[in-house]
Amino acid sequence: MTAEIAVIGAGLCGNLLAILLARQGLKVTVFDRGPPPDAPEPAAGRSINLALAARGIRALEQAGVFTDIEPLLLPMAGRIVHEPGGDVRFLPYGQRRNERIWSVSRSALNRCLWEIARDRFAVDYRFTHDCIHFDAASLTATLRSDDGELAVRAGLLLAADGAGSTIRRSLEQGGRLSASEELLDHGYKELLIPADAAGEFALDPGGLHIWPRGGFMLIALPNLDRSFTATLFLAHRGQAGFESVTTDQVIGFFRDNFNDALPLLPQLQQEFAARPTGTLGTVHCEPWGHRPEPDDGRRALLIGDAAHAIVPFHGQGMNAAFEDCAEFDRLIATQGPDWNAVVPQFEAVRRDNTRAIARMALENYAEMRDTVRDPAFERRAELAFELERLFPGRFIPRYSMVMFHPEIGYAEAERRGHIQAGILAEALAAGEPAAALRLAAQLVATRLPA
Amino acid sequence: MTAEIAVIGAGLCGNLLAILLARQGLKVTVFDRGPPPDAPEPAAGRSINLALAARGIRALEQAGVFTDIEPLLLPMAGRIVHEPGGDVRFLPYGQRRNERIWSVSRSALNRCLWEIARDRFAVDYRFTHDCIHFDAASLTATLRSDDGELAVRAGLLLAADGAGSTIRRSLEQGGRLSASEELLDHGYKELLIPADAAGEFALDPGGLHIWPRGGFMLIALPNLDRSFTATLFLAHRGQAGFESVTTDQVIGFFRDNFNDALPLLPQLQQEFAARPTGTLGTVHCEPWGHRPEPDDGRRALLIGDAAHAIVPFHGQGMNAAFEDCAEFDRLIATQGPDWNAVVPQFEAVRRDNTRAIARMALENYAEMRDTVRDPAFERRAELAFELERLFPGRFIPRYSMVMFHPEIGYAEAERRGHIQAGILAEALAAGEPAAALRLAAQLVATRLPA
Repeated sequence: MTAEIAVIGAGLCGNLLAILLARQGLKVTVFDRGPPPDAPEPAAGRSINLALAARGIRALEQAGVFTDIEPLLLPMAGRIVHEPGGDVRFLPYGQRRNERIWSVSRSALNRCLWEIARDRFAVDYRFTHDCIHFDAASLTATLRSDDGELAVRAGLLLAADGAGSTIRRSLEQGGRLSASEELLDHGYKELLIPADAAGEFALDPGGLHIWPRGGFMLIALPNLDRSFTATLFLAHRGQAGFESVTTDQVIGFFRDNFNDALPLLPQLQQEFAARPTGTLGTVHCEPWGHRPEPDDGRRALLIGDAAHAIVPFHGQGMNAAFEDCAEFDRLIATQGPDWNAVVPQFEAVRRDNTRAIARMALENYAEMRDTVRDPAFERRAELAFELERLFPGRFIPRYSMVMFHPEIGYAEAERRGHIQAGILAEALAAGEPAAALRLAAQLVATRLPA
Repeated sequence: MTAEIAVIGAGLCGNLLAILLARQGLKVTVFDRGPPPDAPEPAAGRSINLALAARGIRALEQAGVFTDIEPLLLPMAGRIVHEPGGDVRFLPYGQRRNERIWSVSRSALNRCLWEIARDRFAVDYRFTHDCIHFDAASLTATLRSDDGELAVRAGLLLAADGAGSTIRRSLEQGGRLSASEELLDHGYKELLIPADAAGEFALDPGGLHIWPRGGFMLIALPNLDRSFTATLFLAHRGQAGFESVTTDQVIGFFRDNFNDALPLLPQLQQEFAARPTGTLGTVHCEPWGHRPEPDDGRRALLIGDAAHAIVPFHGQGMNAAFEDCAEFDRLIATQGPDWNAVVPQFEAVRRDNTRAIARMALENYAEMRDTVRDPAFERRAELAFELERLFPGRFIPRYSMVMFHPEIGYAEAERRGHIQAGILAEALAAGEPAAALRLAAQLVATRLPA
């Protein structure tokens, strides 16, 4: 079949893209290998809830669907850190009004976007169509369904088929694209903290719970049904790793390391045995845009995780993918549906930004599992907040730039973050708080543009 | 007496300044001609409630007092426009989450700031001390109280004594300063809309009510006690002016022009007769900073309304004064209490910005009393919102920049506002909405920096 626009992948990125493109009057067909999102169980091996932050919200607002999504969100105002001894500390994400991130169920969000695309914008969906190959020369996707194989050509084919993108791998095998998939030596496993006997949240639902333990960590995000999804991040190998912690040992491992979480995980052993261990990694590839031979004006474009999957430790994977969608929409609004112009411009705008968030997401893993335990982390965070009060819009903690300031691109956030880290380090070396603040203020005035 | 820092005027600006300076470890004495703010009646002839917006909130956050203020605030999400025929329309101020402004009682806010300054920061207050003269050569203020006259010299004297500043006028008379006070040919009178018989708000409290009538208007802002303060803006002279509308005629005037408001104003005639008619104007003066002769290192500085009073139609007078305070605090944090450095830098940073808001506030009067009635106003506002969705952080309606984007200075908001107004005008001339949007998007891409 020939489509005006074909989107491969009815995940978060594909569905938001479909809405945005349909809003611009374009005809969109979306293909996905899975069943429709109203099937009872979320796909295994993918994270169950996610953190939505300002970049994602901004893209949803651009699509005019944020008010539809809002009822699915649970606010998290900071990190709730569980010490090994059982002490609990609250570290706010930001100090300004409404600086929160939002826990959201991947499946509920995805279903909502799909329903809007289908019902409000008449997007055509073809489920249980598995993309098994992509021919680089003809830009033709081969999709397998119960009806056999379908060859799909489109004026624009958008590969929103995720970190394990078949389209990316086909292009790589065809020598059209160079890619790196850097797997983290840590994996993850998801566990359920059900609501308590009274039907209430078993933990404070107002934050993201972390049990940082240096080499590994447990986290938990609240769900609308008053459960939490906990995620254990552990090395694949080594002593405190998935290869060593067997199903028999997991209770003891939790008792030793996450003792206060143990009573909240009634199915720990069963879940640990039954749930797959997820892998985490960073995907880089180039180029994202592809033209057929001979060039007939059609284009293919990798987008979202398919183009630049990242590790989850900054909670920005979905947000970055939604920002991709918003940027693509903006380029079409400006250029019209001129794929020859829009596709390379998209790549030019997004490449540095997605590279930057890939690096920052990796750095944040160390911060989450380790640094938040360090008293120096709190001193640095306090000085950073004080500088933000004094120099609003000029000194903004890097975490805040990434999470709460979508007007600052990822690359710019990383660049300013480096300057700020230098200021904080130099100032804190000056000793007592008043001296540190005075020096820091002088350094801000010198090094950060007004 | 000799003070480290003397602040003349315990109004909003003076009290916030006192808190910020005391937080930095400086010793502050505040003088005011009136009684302490816990006296029962607010001063006559000054606006009873005000609109607090993001710039003011940011300054209150910088001072660490916003959480104290928050309980005093009532959110207003847009303009509630009352047509002559009685139709009511809601025009939102912004389209993004939390883009609201806040109605606040001047006296309640001022009292709260004064109590914080006094109790939390040990600021020294001298009430019923009326500044009657300021000697420019020696930078000495003469204050009259029941105990006679007091000569005040200070390392830094801050003139926060409002639009009618005695200090500014003394400096002007002494030839040290050139000033212009441009009175508007319109004045205002405040009227009370009490809570209804059930004790509830008589109008929707979620917005700022406007009855725009071209040459004049009525507005109303909600109060915590479920009343509204209504303000009638009218020319001083002419047929629909304060000189023509006598107390006998005011009921008829309201029946002709604000018929739906008439039943809400049970004391209209009495209040109209009893309340003073306020004047409105714009004050410019130069310079704001002054040194004694011979120079002994002391300085005086005009700040807030004393330096740059503006008309109230953008709801930015208090916000601009608070921004002054925050900027002054920032300069001290960076430079230390080096008045010779801080005072001229303050003037350099704030002059263009306060000039810009003075102009924008005047322009907004026409918008409030007239343009909001124009269908073209709504078309322009809708296109502007659509462009903001597509180009977040790049195209921001000017009203939003001023009210919700304190990271953009007033001067920059005015500059970008001019470019944007051109884009909107050209695009709307292109005709039907889709064509207008496409052209506007192209113009944004060309004319506004990414």
